[in-house]
Amino acid sequence: MSAIARLLNPRSIAVIGASGDPQKLTGRPLAYLQKHGFRGAIYPVNPRLPAIPGLICYPDVAALPVAPDLGLVLLGEERVEAAVRALAAKGAGAAIVLASGYAETGEEGAKRQAALKEAAGPMRLLGPNAIGFVNVTDRVIVSASGALELGDLPAGRISVVSQSGGILGALLSRAADRGIGFAKLVSTGNEADLDTAEILEALLDDPSTAVLAVYMEGLRRPAAFRHAAERAARLGKPIVVFKVGRSEAGARSATSHTGALAGTDRLYDALFEQLGIIRAETFDALIDIPAALAAGYRAKGSRVAVLTSTGGAGTLLADCCGLAGLELPAPDPQTQARLAALLGGGKASAPTNPVDVTLAGLRPDLLRAAMAALLESPLYDSLIVVAGASALAQPSLAADAALACRSASDKPILAFVSPHAPEVVRLFQARGIPAMTAPETCASVLAALSRPPAERAPSVPRRVMGSTMPPLPAGPLNEAESKALFVRFGIAAVRGIVATDAAAAEAAARQLGGKIVLKLLSRRISHKSDLGGVRLGLAPGEIAPACAAMRAAAAARGLDLEGFLVEEQIAGGIEMILGLQRDPQLGPAVLIGFGGIAAELLGDTALRLLPIAPRDAAAMVEELKSAPLLAGYRGVPKRDRAALIDAILAFAEMAEALGDRLIEAEINPLFVLHDGNGVRAADGVIVLRD
Amino acid sequence: MSAIARLLNPRSIAVIGASGDPQKLTGRPLAYLQKHGFRGAIYPVNPRLPAIPGLICYPDVAALPVAPDLGLVLLGEERVEAAVRALAAKGAGAAIVLASGYAETGEEGAKRQAALKEAAGPMRLLGPNAIGFVNVTDRVIVSASGALELGDLPAGRISVVSQSGGILGALLSRAADRGIGFAKLVSTGNEADLDTAEILEALLDDPSTAVLAVYMEGLRRPAAFRHAAERAARLGKPIVVFKVGRSEAGARSATSHTGALAGTDRLYDALFEQLGIIRAETFDALIDIPAALAAGYRAKGSRVAVLTSTGGAGTLLADCCGLAGLELPAPDPQTQARLAALLGGGKASAPTNPVDVTLAGLRPDLLRAAMAALLESPLYDSLIVVAGASALAQPSLAADAALACRSASDKPILAFVSPHAPEVVRLFQARGIPAMTAPETCASVLAALSRPPAERAPSVPRRVMGSTMPPLPAGPLNEAESKALFVRFGIAAVRGIVATDAAAAEAAARQLGGKIVLKLLSRRISHKSDLGGVRLGLAPGEIAPACAAMRAAAAARGLDLEGFLVEEQIAGGIEMILGLQRDPQLGPAVLIGFGGIAAELLGDTALRLLPIAPRDAAAMVEELKSAPLLAGYRGVPKRDRAALIDAILAFAEMAEALGDRLIEAEINPLFVLHDGNGVRAADGVIVLRD
Repeated sequence: MSAIARLLNPRSIAVIGASGDPQKLTGRPLAYLQKHGFRGAIYPVNPRLPAIPGLICYPDVAALPVAPDLGLVLLGEERVEAAVRALAAKGAGAAIVLASGYAETGEEGAKRQAALKEAAGPMRLLGPNAIGFVNVTDRVIVSASGALELGDLPAGRISVVSQSGGILGALLSRAADRGIGFAKLVSTGNEADLDTAEILEALLDDPSTAVLAVYMEGLRRPAAFRHAAERAARLGKPIVVFKVGRSEAGARSATSHTGALAGTDRLYDALFEQLGIIRAETFDALIDIPAALAAGYRAKGSRVAVLTSTGGAGTLLADCCGLAGLELPAPDPQTQARLAALLGGGKASAPTNPVDVTLAGLRPDLLRAAMAALLESPLYDSLIVVAGASALAQPSLAADAALACRSASDKPILAFVSPHAPEVVRLFQARGIPAMTAPETCASVLAALSRPPAERAPSVPRRVMGSTMPPLPAGPLNEAESKALFVRFGIAAVRGIVATDAAAAEAAARQLGGKIVLKLLSRRISHKSDLGGVRLGLAPGEIAPACAAMRAAAAARGLDLEGFLVEEQIAGGIEMILGLQRDPQLGPAVLIGFGGIAAELLGDTALRLLPIAPRDAAAMVEELKSAPLLAGYRGVPKRDRAALIDAILAFAEMAEALGDRLIEAEINPLFVLHDGNGVRAADGVIVLRD
Repeated sequence: MSAIARLLNPRSIAVIGASGDPQKLTGRPLAYLQKHGFRGAIYPVNPRLPAIPGLICYPDVAALPVAPDLGLVLLGEERVEAAVRALAAKGAGAAIVLASGYAETGEEGAKRQAALKEAAGPMRLLGPNAIGFVNVTDRVIVSASGALELGDLPAGRISVVSQSGGILGALLSRAADRGIGFAKLVSTGNEADLDTAEILEALLDDPSTAVLAVYMEGLRRPAAFRHAAERAARLGKPIVVFKVGRSEAGARSATSHTGALAGTDRLYDALFEQLGIIRAETFDALIDIPAALAAGYRAKGSRVAVLTSTGGAGTLLADCCGLAGLELPAPDPQTQARLAALLGGGKASAPTNPVDVTLAGLRPDLLRAAMAALLESPLYDSLIVVAGASALAQPSLAADAALACRSASDKPILAFVSPHAPEVVRLFQARGIPAMTAPETCASVLAALSRPPAERAPSVPRRVMGSTMPPLPAGPLNEAESKALFVRFGIAAVRGIVATDAAAAEAAARQLGGKIVLKLLSRRISHKSDLGGVRLGLAPGEIAPACAAMRAAAAARGLDLEGFLVEEQIAGGIEMILGLQRDPQLGPAVLIGFGGIAAELLGDTALRLLPIAPRDAAAMVEELKSAPLLAGYRGVPKRDRAALIDAILAFAEMAEALGDRLIEAEINPLFVLHDGNGVRAADGVIVLRD
């Protein structure tokens, strides 16, 4: 039995600092354990209490009769470390620490947190600053969350990992109200030891967990998380994440809440995209998307039929569906004929989607038959039923019809309830039809169900060339050295010759022929253009004076040149940027964008974390709004998209091979030539550390 | 008494086609009128019923003892027109038609709708395809909406205009659940006669209406709506609009629902922006924003303090606030000292926002004092209180504290309730503190309150030059004629000379001096470049052969040239586009954008409907993400932003002066020169109708 399994399903629990008063924070966990039917042994530890009704109370951890599977530490921060040390000495499997005042408060707190981790020794630690966990499956509730005042905790197949304890309570109570149940909910807090990734791995092994919902403030071990997500994809257990830190205010707050290091939110988007993780855009969706997935729903595509008993709400929902990227094609002629035969003339037989069954919708048999017709049409991948004011008079009408159709189709059926009618929502939910009251949420849930499931193959690099890496000096490489490295990894550079003096440069120009680009060569000058260090369109005769001018400009600033780079001038290329972005939290990522203002001012760039797979590189290109420039926009010739994708992969491979040595890498511009002609690195830089 | 006032507050109502069975659609309105306490006379009309309990039933409209203020027509579509004609003949003030099957079904239906309007004569008409209205203030409920099954309708200061009857019901029931009341709710349906604009005007006169909420599928009379919105701004009655048709699926559905012509959604954004109208982005916000405005709240800026009893929900809310464009500065030292003195050490005294009062928050006096400290800080414009799980144990704690602070401050106080706790939400609402359960909605409500109120001045053009307009031919003007028109309205063009032949062109080139741009001149050729009809950087000696080549290329396609345009070549200008976009529904709009892919692929353009005011033109420039290009981006010199704004206004004025004659107008490129040097129209076209 793994330590985490022992943590989540303990046979014995010691509650350190337990109070006998269930109104107190320190009294709640005992009360909840008993109330929700924990079947194991409970050992309260409190030197000031002889007993707690029905339980023997122990003066200290050392006095416990056994080594408990789990110790729950409810003490104030100043007494926590000793208690944790005592639990470890006693041989406890794991400890949960509720106290706050650790890494989230700054440097001093981080030191206390490190000491706490050290005190735990081989014993596993959940927290500090964690509210505990709720194992609904086995009725083990080890938490101080006020949300556990709830009378009944419905069991379900969704498990939650939350870096915030308060949010865990919010999810629990909000879902319970809608009849949505959970398997396990774990609050990880500051994650001094057990973190989101490791808890996820454990929950993947839990047979009662089918879907994972994660509330995230920041990721401490991206590689471990990646591993868990890839395993989840192989197991067919989808992960839905709601992550804060999308705004600066949120990121700052997350840091002071659980000490989370937020990282760049866009890179989280990239990470989730790469791993096939569904990102919930609203807090509600963190309940509703997992609930729909747990109902076993996946749509094969994005074409939805909307069946409504009220035109206005149908239009409202259709609008939200369209915004969420879903399609609402009008019924095919066959389906339309079936609907007309069922529902008669008028609105219901108009070739529109939503299908409006205003009056006919009041007859159960007709409603059922209309739903069946839409579900059986090959044109649709899913169905949303809209319940209007008429549902107030006949609350179960649409829910019963949907239930009758459910077994005959594997297409998702969702419900949108337009008036305030919580009983109608619950009737749908009770029949396994996810029901929503916000049209935006309903649309985004269906959009999530319509995404292709995460691919099973992990993102692996295409090839490894790193083993043949030459010795490279620390610091910036000069342009020629940088390009040589790009070339080594398979990214073509423009033809060029390094010349140490003007005469050699002129000779090189004659050798290359045609119009020439002349650049100064220096690893110490990062903005050549500012020094007049880049000249375009030169003839061989113009080279020598240009060299002299460059040397003079550099000398004026006290800089020596290493020489000159003489290159052919390329025509017909589109300028792109291919670069590395390094996030302190998530690690290195590859960035692409078009040159000029598109990337810089308009933010039209695409990012993926290393390592990337070929499909990631292709997706990056797709993601650029400026991508039509490559495809032959406005009569301009088509460019070599395949070579660009290849260059992205090669660049990523280079970054992986250089590993932690790589501080900076950028090709700017990378010319993407006419289709079939490849790409050329026209300028670029590499900076390495020792 | 106006006809609409008579409609919304009638002394007598005839119900045509009334049934005695309150379960039936045709029975509901009578039942609702009686149930909600209508004090006027009710005349059921139904030839097949001798009486309806408590009321005399009349066989037809002609038999009514008086001319009713209002006739409610519940008949099927085939019998509606005769009833409307009879009501008009009887002298009724207005009629409401519930039946559908009119313009929303297509051309035949549109004809029936026109006939219906004609049958009404001078009598006003609400509908067809309308569910009626609810006058809560005067307890006059004339509607078949099932939402009126609600026992109690709370009265409030929000009035609703909805083009959908079903949505009216949804708003009514959702708001009632939260204790939010309305003054009047009017469903306008297909708007054969009375439309959104006219109902809005009437509601502006209603002393019990302080805020207007509009559910819109499309706008039939933009100018009238504009007038109403401008009057609303002068009266200080904010308008909040939720508009569908943001996606193609929604726009299509709106057309088949109420025959709405959707128009371009982006232009609605522009219209709302110009009129200071708040656009609700989610359906929930269409209740929550008006409710907060009706509570008398406006924030002076966007800096919010968040006070929370639970770190996680505080972070979640902070993140949503940041995304919504709000700022969360940390407390100033003085406020921080006050908080520390109140709350002691630990989290609560950390210089963070959200301010976390975890444990101290359980004492009412401390909570109240902390709220007061934040409200009194000059650093904050508003306060959001976050209620966590502890609110379940003490539901009124935070709400009472907020109420106590409310009278001492004119800053908005909102509440976000994190766990499922409807009783806590209602306790806040009952104390006049708008409370939300979706963090996204809470943030967007506060963002709406933080917008500056609509300006009182209507958008008027700066000057009128149209009176001196020369006679202009129909069809496309050639480039020279187009530029002459731009110049007449105050937009400078590049210096140029029209030449009829090569010799004249060469002479013109010598006269202009410097590098020359040569273009073919023809009103029939709209893409000169495709024909080689634009040559840059020519010397005078190169002009004649270039002219010959252009003439030959045109001749090869069977086209004659009108001559040549010989122009100076401009340097140092940034290329922009200044154009006209004409929406079938909303009318003409001015568009600006930067040349190249920014406008076309990346959609970085700004739009405003005519007429525009100087502040609109300045706002358009601000709105462009590429705007930093004008301000001296990356060392590139600053451009003449003021001249650009002037050109936008001049272009708008030209479009207004040409009015309906103007089919197409575009300047592309418009060079924006270095600061102080103005702009130059370098190419452009005007197309006019007869």
